[in-house]
Amino acid sequence: MFGLVDNAGNLLLEDNISTPDYKTIEEFALAVYNKLESRKEEFEGKYQIVGFGIGAPNANYYSGNIEYAMNLNWQGIVPIKEVFEKQFNVKTIVTNDANAAAIGEMVYGNAKGMKDFIMITLGTGLGSGIVINGELVYGHDGFAGELGHITVNPNGRKCGCGRMGCLETYVSATGIKRTVYKLLAKYNNPSKLRDIPFNQLTAKMITEAAMQDDTIAHEAFDYTAKILGAKLADAVAFSSPEAIFLFGGLANAGDYVFLPVKKYMEQFLLPIFRNKVKIIPSALQKLNAAILGASALVWKEIE
Amino acid sequence: MFGLVDNAGNLLLEDNISTPDYKTIEEFALAVYNKLESRKEEFEGKYQIVGFGIGAPNANYYSGNIEYAMNLNWQGIVPIKEVFEKQFNVKTIVTNDANAAAIGEMVYGNAKGMKDFIMITLGTGLGSGIVINGELVYGHDGFAGELGHITVNPNGRKCGCGRMGCLETYVSATGIKRTVYKLLAKYNNPSKLRDIPFNQLTAKMITEAAMQDDTIAHEAFDYTAKILGAKLADAVAFSSPEAIFLFGGLANAGDYVFLPVKKYMEQFLLPIFRNKVKIIPSALQKLNAAILGASALVWKEIE
Repeated sequence: MFGLVDNAGNLLLEDNISTPDYKTIEEFALAVYNKLESRKEEFEGKYQIVGFGIGAPNANYYSGNIEYAMNLNWQGIVPIKEVFEKQFNVKTIVTNDANAAAIGEMVYGNAKGMKDFIMITLGTGLGSGIVINGELVYGHDGFAGELGHITVNPNGRKCGCGRMGCLETYVSATGIKRTVYKLLAKYNNPSKLRDIPFNQLTAKMITEAAMQDDTIAHEAFDYTAKILGAKLADAVAFSSPEAIFLFGGLANAGDYVFLPVKKYMEQFLLPIFRNKVKIIPSALQKLNAAILGASALVWKEIE
Repeated sequence: MFGLVDNAGNLLLEDNISTPDYKTIEEFALAVYNKLESRKEEFEGKYQIVGFGIGAPNANYYSGNIEYAMNLNWQGIVPIKEVFEKQFNVKTIVTNDANAAAIGEMVYGNAKGMKDFIMITLGTGLGSGIVINGELVYGHDGFAGELGHITVNPNGRKCGCGRMGCLETYVSATGIKRTVYKLLAKYNNPSKLRDIPFNQLTAKMITEAAMQDDTIAHEAFDYTAKILGAKLADAVAFSSPEAIFLFGGLANAGDYVFLPVKKYMEQFLLPIFRNKVKIIPSALQKLNAAILGASALVWKEIE
C-alpha cells in the first residue's frame, strides 16, 4: 500500500502493490516507480515528490534497513532506504509501523503540539511508538519502543518472539482471542462465542458479544484492560507522557477498552501521576493511517 | 551537603549544612550564603559562581519546586529554585538525586559521549535517571524516571508510596534486607545473618556474608538480581539504551550484583537486544557523587 500525501495530510493518490509478488527489494522499488509513472498525469506539474517515508516491520531508522523481519519474503538485512533512494533520487526515511503511526499522530492527528506521548497499536500484535521531548525514541540501536515484548508473566503464554508471557500475547486482537478461549475453558456460562472457531474469531466479534452482554466477552475485556492498565502505569513511571493513544483493531472496541484501561491504569499509578495522563483514541484510526504515518516521517524531518 | 565544582568536575570546596535545622527554605538559603561568605577567601578572585545545581527528593525541574517530599521538614510545595535565585542572583537548576546522578555520569563519568543510557541508584530506595537522545527525560510534568515504583507484584511488599509490590521494595539496600529476612524465615540453614537484627542489617553485611559463602546471602543476591534483570529487560524494550549504570550502596556488592543482573537481563531480553546493553558501575561511585551530580546540572545547561 502506498500513496502521495501533501504536508497538510491530504492523500492525493493511493495505490497497492503486493510485496510477496516481488523476489527482491530492487524489483519492488521498480514496481512502485512504474506504478507512479503510469499515474503521473495525476500529480505532475502540481506536486513534486520530496521524499519517501516507509513503515515496515523491523525497519531500522538509523541503518535504513529492514532487519530479519519474520513476515516478509525478503530475508536477512534488506537495504530498503538505499534501494529507494537510488530508484527515486529523493530522501527516504524508514521505521516500523508503530513509530510511523506515532509520527503521523504528531504531524496530522491528536498529538499535534504534544511533546511527550506514547502510541500503542493493538492489531495482530502490540506495537508502540514513544515520543519524548518532541522526538521519537529510537534508542542507541534504532529498535526502541518494543512494549509488546515487556514481560507480563515469565511462565505465561508463548509469544511469536520465542519467549513466554510477552504483553502482546495478552493485549492485542490476537491476545484477547486467546483470553476468550481461556475463559470459555474456565467457565461454563453459555456464550455465542462458543460457536466460533479460534481461527474465525475477531476482536470485532468479541466487541459485538460484549454489546449483547455476553459475560465471557465482558470478562475478556476486563482481563485485557487490567494487564494493559498495569503496564501503562509502568510506562508512565518511565517517561511520564501527557497522553497515551490506542490505535488499531482492538481500539475499535471503544469504551469496552478505553474505560477499564483508564480505571486500572489509575489504580496502578504512583500517586504523583494520578489524573494527569489522558488515554485517547488516535485521530488516524479512521483514515489511511499506514500511508499518513509513513508520509509524516518525511514532513517531520523537512520541518 | 554542598560544594563548589569547576567545569572539569574538580571539587574546590565542600561543606555541610543540616536541612532539619532550618524551619524555612529562606533560612536555609541564607545559611548556605553565610557559609560561603565565611569561606570566600578560598575562591574569591579565582572562581566565580555561575549557578546552583540542587538534587533533592521530589524536586521538579520544570517548576523549580520541591513538591510534597516525605523526608524533608519543609512541607507542601517549596519554591527552592526561586529562593536560591533571589539569595544568590545566579541561575539555579533543581531535579531529584537520581536525575542529578545521571547528568553527573554524563558530564564527568562513564557516560561521557553516550546519548542513551539509564542510571539506577540503589540506596534506601531505587532511583532512576533516564537519558534519551542526550537529554534527561523529565516527562510532561517533570517527574519521569520513577522506575523504583514500577510494579513487580501487585500483591507484593508494602511500599513507602502506599502501594504494594513496587520494584524498590525488592531491589534496593532495604529491599535485599527484606529478602534476607524472608529467606531466613523460609529456610533453616545456619547463617551469620540470623544474629543481626533487621534494623542493624546493611547491604554491606549481606555482601560480607556472601563472601563467606553464606547460602542465605547468595540466594538473596540471586533473588534480587532476577527481579532487577527482568525489569531492566523491560526498560531496554522501552528505550534501548547503550548502557545501564548501577550506583549506590547495593552496587558496592560488585560481582554479586553485576554478574547475575546481567545474566538475568539477557535471559529476559527480546532477541534483537541481546548482547548489546552494558551493565556497568558508575564512575562517580567513589567520588562525592551528590555534589558532582548536582553541579553537572549547571554545566550541562551552560554548555
